[in-house]
Amino acid sequence: MVVPRLIERKRSGQALSAEEWHALVAGYTAGEVPDYQLAALLVAVMFRGLDATELAALTEAMLESGERLPRPVGGAPRIDKHSTGGVGDKTSLILAPLLAACGVRVPMMSGRGLGHTGGTLDKLESIPGFTTRMPLADAAKQLEAIGVVMFGQTDEIVPADRKLYALRDVTGTVESIPLITASIMSKKLAEQLDGLVLDVKVGSGASMPDLGDARDLARTMVHVGHRAGCRTVALITAMDRPLGRSAGNAIEVVESIAALRGDAAGDLMEVTMALGAEMLMLAGKSESRSAAVAQLKRVIRSGAALDKFREIVQWQGGDVAVVDDPSRLAVAPVRRDVRAGHAGRMPALPPRALGEIVVAMGGGRRTAEGIIDPAVGLEVLPRVGQHVAGNEVVAVVLARSPGEAGIAETALLRAMDAAWQRREEPLPLLIERITNEDTAPYGELAWDH
Amino acid sequence: MVVPRLIERKRSGQALSAEEWHALVAGYTAGEVPDYQLAALLVAVMFRGLDATELAALTEAMLESGERLPRPVGGAPRIDKHSTGGVGDKTSLILAPLLAACGVRVPMMSGRGLGHTGGTLDKLESIPGFTTRMPLADAAKQLEAIGVVMFGQTDEIVPADRKLYALRDVTGTVESIPLITASIMSKKLAEQLDGLVLDVKVGSGASMPDLGDARDLARTMVHVGHRAGCRTVALITAMDRPLGRSAGNAIEVVESIAALRGDAAGDLMEVTMALGAEMLMLAGKSESRSAAVAQLKRVIRSGAALDKFREIVQWQGGDVAVVDDPSRLAVAPVRRDVRAGHAGRMPALPPRALGEIVVAMGGGRRTAEGIIDPAVGLEVLPRVGQHVAGNEVVAVVLARSPGEAGIAETALLRAMDAAWQRREEPLPLLIERITNEDTAPYGELAWDH
Repeated sequence: MVVPRLIERKRSGQALSAEEWHALVAGYTAGEVPDYQLAALLVAVMFRGLDATELAALTEAMLESGERLPRPVGGAPRIDKHSTGGVGDKTSLILAPLLAACGVRVPMMSGRGLGHTGGTLDKLESIPGFTTRMPLADAAKQLEAIGVVMFGQTDEIVPADRKLYALRDVTGTVESIPLITASIMSKKLAEQLDGLVLDVKVGSGASMPDLGDARDLARTMVHVGHRAGCRTVALITAMDRPLGRSAGNAIEVVESIAALRGDAAGDLMEVTMALGAEMLMLAGKSESRSAAVAQLKRVIRSGAALDKFREIVQWQGGDVAVVDDPSRLAVAPVRRDVRAGHAGRMPALPPRALGEIVVAMGGGRRTAEGIIDPAVGLEVLPRVGQHVAGNEVVAVVLARSPGEAGIAETALLRAMDAAWQRREEPLPLLIERITNEDTAPYGELAWDH
Repeated sequence: MVVPRLIERKRSGQALSAEEWHALVAGYTAGEVPDYQLAALLVAVMFRGLDATELAALTEAMLESGERLPRPVGGAPRIDKHSTGGVGDKTSLILAPLLAACGVRVPMMSGRGLGHTGGTLDKLESIPGFTTRMPLADAAKQLEAIGVVMFGQTDEIVPADRKLYALRDVTGTVESIPLITASIMSKKLAEQLDGLVLDVKVGSGASMPDLGDARDLARTMVHVGHRAGCRTVALITAMDRPLGRSAGNAIEVVESIAALRGDAAGDLMEVTMALGAEMLMLAGKSESRSAAVAQLKRVIRSGAALDKFREIVQWQGGDVAVVDDPSRLAVAPVRRDVRAGHAGRMPALPPRALGEIVVAMGGGRRTAEGIIDPAVGLEVLPRVGQHVAGNEVVAVVLARSPGEAGIAETALLRAMDAAWQRREEPLPLLIERITNEDTAPYGELAWDH
């Protein structure tokens, strides 16, 4: 393998062989192929793309750079969900116990927040004592014991991705559909899944704001999943406004626990049910969307979903009392009500601006090493399109100090004013469903077969 | 300067500012911008190109990374020639003394051979004692004293180019017109020239075999030269066969000395005269092409050109007796005549194959550290198109051993057979002349004004 010749071939639009991708990834992970050659190759990939065979080979080569989550022969179906990230998106916290309560094994390996979006691990760690760091063997043990584990990527999982992502970050090569796909799918495949549901966000708060790009990414990931023997379905959902009421860490755990009691904002429940139904169908536990939703509602009503969450907290060292008394979670001392200032139908508030307000208050990180304050955050009370009066309290800010609350309030008012003036038509919450066979508008899906 | 954002902007087709190019080159030379970021940027440049302002800024930034050849105020015009490289191309050895004999200052900073093409420095060093390594101050002193100096690039000249070239070599980013232009022109501008003549080769033995590419490169270099205040003219010349009779090191010095006596192969004299005439006209020493050629012939006839070569050899520590007795140069012990095997018009022999034969015998280098045997080489006796008989000796191989001579002969016969079978129409020797104003077929140029 003469790397400059591979770079030249990729640059001129030719495909590299599966063997060449394997040799490149193995050489890079072992430190034999230097950063500057990989950087040159990554830029060539951004211009020329990867064909389906190349992308499958890259993903597999990355997967093979590390360990997989052990899996016993047979056993219950293993299904996970992955979101491309958004503000207020706490569906992982709800879906993991909910699906486990339905008899599905959910090995939920998640990430931390960076920039304007939060991370599942950070949210969970706002529960006192809750740990998400564990060896792969322990994660596998918990998964078999209670059907669900919520943990962070360990050093053993896809080391090539960690090294490659760090290089992409400093060479402006993050925003590439094949590179994003290989990064996400290699980690998900390391969980040894039977099925995977992808929540691909679109809208101003999404990493791919444009529907066309999001659809390309979704189709590419679905295809790579299928090639690797993991049935994969993607839903394209709205991220032109935050999902649910809350954005922050402890505050999102509170909302998630409410959802597990069947008592959460309509948009959050709608997305959670749509993703959960796909997971149940992939697991072979439901034959139709309507049956799946009924089953999910049943385990919420029975308390089984909340019990499963309690089990997770217990197994992972957290304060179980939180589940029945969420007020035990840290709450920032200053609570500031924010009034609409406009009367009429509530517009879609820009998720990026709201996410940045949470980060500014200390609730997110700007660099991978940042420390998070779990107690701060904000709530938006009305749903998009709901009628509000001019003097109505539409948002609540939770901050460390009156000064920070004031800054957050000002930023929030500015974002709201702009949204009220733009009056953009909000996206449908559930936009499309993409399988390996077709792409269908979500609203036209059959519910009963 | 946030380098990943610059890479993204270049990747998306935007131009970077002159300040940004200066900061990038300065940062890279100082080791503050890492190789992997430059590598990513170079690939983006290969896809997106550089606009005229960017290319001028990159060239200037590279030039400013080092020293320039000192130049006194006023004095004779300083003119150089640069070739993109070919097999048998020894015009530098002839032009430097020839033009100096006409009163032009020729600061000929040259390179070494790599791959199938030879290098001026290697050829000169086949003269016993001849040194091409000297401090810039010494080169400037010799230039003012005798009007000409033939030396190698020192560490003081454009250090950014050495570092960038090494990176391009290992990232498959050598073949880029803007990057080649910045590399060549920054070094030539460091000579503080009044004028520059470029010999841009086309044909199978050239670094840019295609006429369109060669023309783009020529126009780009001419434009960058003019922007930097150095009048620049390019000739596009044929490299679909070797130039002159000989390819090797000592053997090319012998042919160059013959040329300085007015006794060399027609094609070599034709290209030398065409380039020399451009140099004289740029120097303001001749008003027309025909007057320039007459002047060049005059200093050859008078012996002034050969005397100037003698002066160069003396100043640079070489054995002056070589000039009058070239048989003092090293000659490899085995001389093997090669017969045509075909009768008819001599075809264009592939320069790359012939160059590789010389390299295989030890007369060139495969890596920058290789050692050269000056005594080996080959001669092709008839000119392209000349009638030869089937049993006629058309080539001579000079080798270290009978075994190596045999291998070279076999390879040469194979190359000749293939050329005889292809019977490709040779390119015109002098193809086009490119100035900052226009591009003209060489055959249609005016000779008398």
